Amino acid sequence: MPTIDPDRLMADLQELRSIGAVENGVVRPALSDKDMEARRWLAAKFEAAGLSASIDGVGNVYGRSAKPGPALLIGSHSDTQPRGGWLDGALGVIYGLEIARAMAEDPATSGLAVDVVSWQDEEGTFMSCLGSRSWCGTLDPEVEKASNNAALGLTLPQAIAKAGLAEVPRQTIEPDRYLGYLEAHIEQGAYLEEGGLNIGVVTGIVAIRGMRFRFHGEQNHAGTTTMKRRKDAATALFEVAHRINQEFPAVAGERTVWTMGRLSVQPGAPSIVPGYAELDLQFRDLDESILDRFEAIAAAIAKDVAAKGKVKVEVERSRTPVRPSWMDAGFQKHLAGAAEATVPGKWQSMPSAAGHDPMVISEKLPCAMLFIPSIGGISHDFAEDSHASDIVLGCRVLADAAASILQERRNA
Amino acid sequence: MPTIDPDRLMADLQELRSIGAVENGVVRPALSDKDMEARRWLAAKFEAAGLSASIDGVGNVYGRSAKPGPALLIGSHSDTQPRGGWLDGALGVIYGLEIARAMAEDPATSGLAVDVVSWQDEEGTFMSCLGSRSWCGTLDPEVEKASNNAALGLTLPQAIAKAGLAEVPRQTIEPDRYLGYLEAHIEQGAYLEEGGLNIGVVTGIVAIRGMRFRFHGEQNHAGTTTMKRRKDAATALFEVAHRINQEFPAVAGERTVWTMGRLSVQPGAPSIVPGYAELDLQFRDLDESILDRFEAIAAAIAKDVAAKGKVKVEVERSRTPVRPSWMDAGFQKHLAGAAEATVPGKWQSMPSAAGHDPMVISEKLPCAMLFIPSIGGISHDFAEDSHASDIVLGCRVLADAAASILQERRNA
Repeated sequence: MPTIDPDRLMADLQELRSIGAVENGVVRPALSDKDMEARRWLAAKFEAAGLSASIDGVGNVYGRSAKPGPALLIGSHSDTQPRGGWLDGALGVIYGLEIARAMAEDPATSGLAVDVVSWQDEEGTFMSCLGSRSWCGTLDPEVEKASNNAALGLTLPQAIAKAGLAEVPRQTIEPDRYLGYLEAHIEQGAYLEEGGLNIGVVTGIVAIRGMRFRFHGEQNHAGTTTMKRRKDAATALFEVAHRINQEFPAVAGERTVWTMGRLSVQPGAPSIVPGYAELDLQFRDLDESILDRFEAIAAAIAKDVAAKGKVKVEVERSRTPVRPSWMDAGFQKHLAGAAEATVPGKWQSMPSAAGHDPMVISEKLPCAMLFIPSIGGISHDFAEDSHASDIVLGCRVLADAAASILQERRNA
Repeated sequence: MPTIDPDRLMADLQELRSIGAVENGVVRPALSDKDMEARRWLAAKFEAAGLSASIDGVGNVYGRSAKPGPALLIGSHSDTQPRGGWLDGALGVIYGLEIARAMAEDPATSGLAVDVVSWQDEEGTFMSCLGSRSWCGTLDPEVEKASNNAALGLTLPQAIAKAGLAEVPRQTIEPDRYLGYLEAHIEQGAYLEEGGLNIGVVTGIVAIRGMRFRFHGEQNHAGTTTMKRRKDAATALFEVAHRINQEFPAVAGERTVWTMGRLSVQPGAPSIVPGYAELDLQFRDLDESILDRFEAIAAAIAKDVAAKGKVKVEVERSRTPVRPSWMDAGFQKHLAGAAEATVPGKWQSMPSAAGHDPMVISEKLPCAMLFIPSIGGISHDFAEDSHASDIVLGCRVLADAAASILQERRNA
């Protein structure tokens, strides 16, 4: 089995962290100057590890092994949330780099092919999983053109041009080369920590659906308009939102989640009865039948509130539904075996409640994911962190599983 | 009794409307170029009416009669909401102008003193009732300095300087000159229209209180954070807001109103559990005991939601409470008499649910207000309008009442 170098692993993670570091976190959104600086740094690291490095036209960084296939592709993303943690994405990329190096250094595994990748814009600064979509050939050119970031005032094509990538070719999947794709990630939740566990073997990535409610009332003066005459869009929103929170638990599973994280009330003044309001509802589970029931309940509540005749309520999907993505069963066995050998009894199989590039890639290649614990379950925040011991342990387990997958194939 | 000229009245209203006209409405916020243009136009009109005109250091426009007192001051404001109606404020100012002219033209009333005024910033672009506060001597210099308009990126002192008023003296009340202050206004509600009435005689201006709820939860990932672990600020907001709407009706009076027109959920993304939220609640009634009970109910709901131990809820006053303002009983009798003589049975006494400059001025002088019907009760909107017949009728009633008040004093 390959021997990973904990000091080298941690040093590389810290060096990558320094690019875009702000307080305890990292600000390195996709295609920003800092993101591109990190990608050039990664390419140099890949070259130094004996891989052939390249950055393609969307900013994906590849480190290709000179060994013939079949190969494993290992990686994650190096772009961050607007105010991201230092390990979200970076962990999986540096794991890939360290595993490629460790494999090459061990005569028993030096003949095995490990390619490393950092995907572009997993976090959706412009379009979530942009890089893996591009590589898989499932990026819709029309959607790409229309993608933008309102806060930055940039379209995706403008951001690509600004990053100097407009004329750079894009690389796409070579299906014959790859056995599959492995990605390690921080859990971003607290199941592992609460269970006193060190490793999660991901069974699948949850389905995600979103609904948007639009409330059409009538804007008016908050003093002179009697309660009876009002068509208050906010009042209807409050009722729909509160009833969703009251009624969903009855049909939710243990791990079902729902969130109403974005809303707007117009014109948004204390002395004006709101004429218009919007509410986004998002819900996730591996079990789509639960999501079907959520959709039905939410629509029924909206209809019920609209039936009062004051405020018109429109309901629509706010995003293309994400179907559940299933991780490869064979790969899961290798990860489970490596975890059990390293930390007996201290791992579990579990779904991923967050989206990751394997949602996209699993349509084309077998995929597997490994989780390490997040301290306090904190994610998408400068305070995100994991224990160094867990970081090192996770890399060992992923390295062992990668070697085991490749060796099994060689021996087959 | 003075004879007002309907054509002159309507022509002046239309000419004033043209300054800052947008679609069917008017954009003439306090101290803007258009507002100052309108004030210079008014000053010229006052001069042409034989009044001595001046614009003071906050932009109040005065038209002073050469007649010795005791005088009546008649007017309103000529600034508008950001997207205001054409009559809100303008109506009362042009009524004052027309009444001063009509009085001067009638030998029976030409000896009576009517001064006319347009107050500055009644609508609160920088500070509501700025002009009347300045005139009454109740403007706090510290509060004035701190007032600003975030959307315009201007402080009140900067806006005053930009309008060229920084060095212009401010005029203050001469209590010995005035019998009192009269203001006509559109109703901004639908009580008159629904009752088939032409005139409202205002009994008082309602008390207004505001509360702000601050919800402190914990921002987290909307996929990986279990429902049990969440401290969702928006969920707490929805419960507080919906329960307020459920519980207030039991203690509300017929004309009590409450509004939650401004709220914010942070960071405001569909995939992030909100860590912070804010909600503004405003409520109005002439009867302060109802407002006391509202405050107690709202505080109890907030405490109850906070007691779940997930989200900390802070409650504070969001504005200095406005006490009810009572209109002068004697003036009301003159208005009622003039209304009954002009449109028998087609008027009523009623509170004002909107704030007006007499809230400020009634602390210093007897005040009275007259309402004319608003079509559909629409206010603070480009669509605001009133029937020309009601506009003319209202001016007749106010003119008759003004003459009657002044004559009564002269005969006393």
